[in-house]
Amino acid sequence: MTAPIEFYFDFASPYGYLASTQIDALGNRFEREVLWRPFLVGASFKLTGRKPLIEVPLIRDYMRHDIERFARLLNVPFVIPDRFPIAAIAASRAYYWLEERDAAHAKTLAQQVYRDYFADNRDIASKRYPADLALALGLPPDQLLDAVQSQAVKDRFRTENDRALSLGVFGSPFIVVDGEAFWGADRLPQVEQWLAHGGW
Amino acid sequence: MTAPIEFYFDFASPYGYLASTQIDALGNRFEREVLWRPFLVGASFKLTGRKPLIEVPLIRDYMRHDIERFARLLNVPFVIPDRFPIAAIAASRAYYWLEERDAAHAKTLAQQVYRDYFADNRDIASKRYPADLALALGLPPDQLLDAVQSQAVKDRFRTENDRALSLGVFGSPFIVVDGEAFWGADRLPQVEQWLAHGGW
Repeated sequence: MTAPIEFYFDFASPYGYLASTQIDALGNRFEREVLWRPFLVGASFKLTGRKPLIEVPLIRDYMRHDIERFARLLNVPFVIPDRFPIAAIAASRAYYWLEERDAAHAKTLAQQVYRDYFADNRDIASKRYPADLALALGLPPDQLLDAVQSQAVKDRFRTENDRALSLGVFGSPFIVVDGEAFWGADRLPQVEQWLAHGGW
Repeated sequence: MTAPIEFYFDFASPYGYLASTQIDALGNRFEREVLWRPFLVGASFKLTGRKPLIEVPLIRDYMRHDIERFARLLNVPFVIPDRFPIAAIAASRAYYWLEERDAAHAKTLAQQVYRDYFADNRDIASKRYPADLALALGLPPDQLLDAVQSQAVKDRFRTENDRALSLGVFGSPFIVVDGEAFWGADRLPQVEQWLAHGGW
């Protein structure tokens, strides 16, 4: 087993969601672990002067159609959530808190969050969401609620965001394989070729 | 033969260049004509509030690396031109002028322009370029120089730009198949799947 694939994504990113449904199977095919790394793409917007594509005229219309078409191609359920986009702070913190305890369970948490948001149209940024998420995962709700408000977990997530930004991660999904960065769910075929041939 | 594939591209777009090296072979595989439609992506920037990716911090660095890597994958020559980006007005006008006379020759012209710019690092926005281009294509230089300054050709190109914008074309390359729009050279695999299955 060589170095893990790093999978950077924002829980509010539909293309991140689409990639999340493929990335572990891709890793498995090449015997690569996949490290899931939620971050807030909004932090890079200050540097790039950009904003969410869904707020950009022209691109907005293309994107709504494109994501639904892309999801159909991958055969995964998808809706544009009623509340979109959002800043998925609590869900991201919950991920890192759980990852320190049980990495596999944390990945299950991330998949649950994405499904809740983009398949079931639930508001993952609402106050009550962490408690619901805990119940869905068999975790004590109070423990998760405390965790996402703890300074240690806040600091951890801030550190992860800073790290992503320092690595030049400016979009979601952003996939790093052996130091090579690939931006976008539509780059999964190139990631696959890179893994298959060890570069080109 | 069903409806042609519409291939919108900006001569200043490296991803447009990459797609241009693949699109006709793709059309041939599915017995589809490919209509090449140069336009100025800058016109859409007023509506989208965006600017060329190469001018955006963070994305700029990713993009330089990505295009070279993508070109290597496709096995096509590529350099980031010394003068980049530019507004390829004369070259685009020359295309439409020639297309009215000889569509196949116009496609050869477009391929020559892209090669001159992204393989041979020539300044396709320079004053002398149209004359050089004419010579390379066996056209009378004076005729091409007159054409790109004529009101009729200017109007034609403006009409094409307006048309692209009215269709929601905001990026380069932008490929339309049976009314379905695909943005980006990295979407060619999806274009191929769409052509193969008549949608999904």
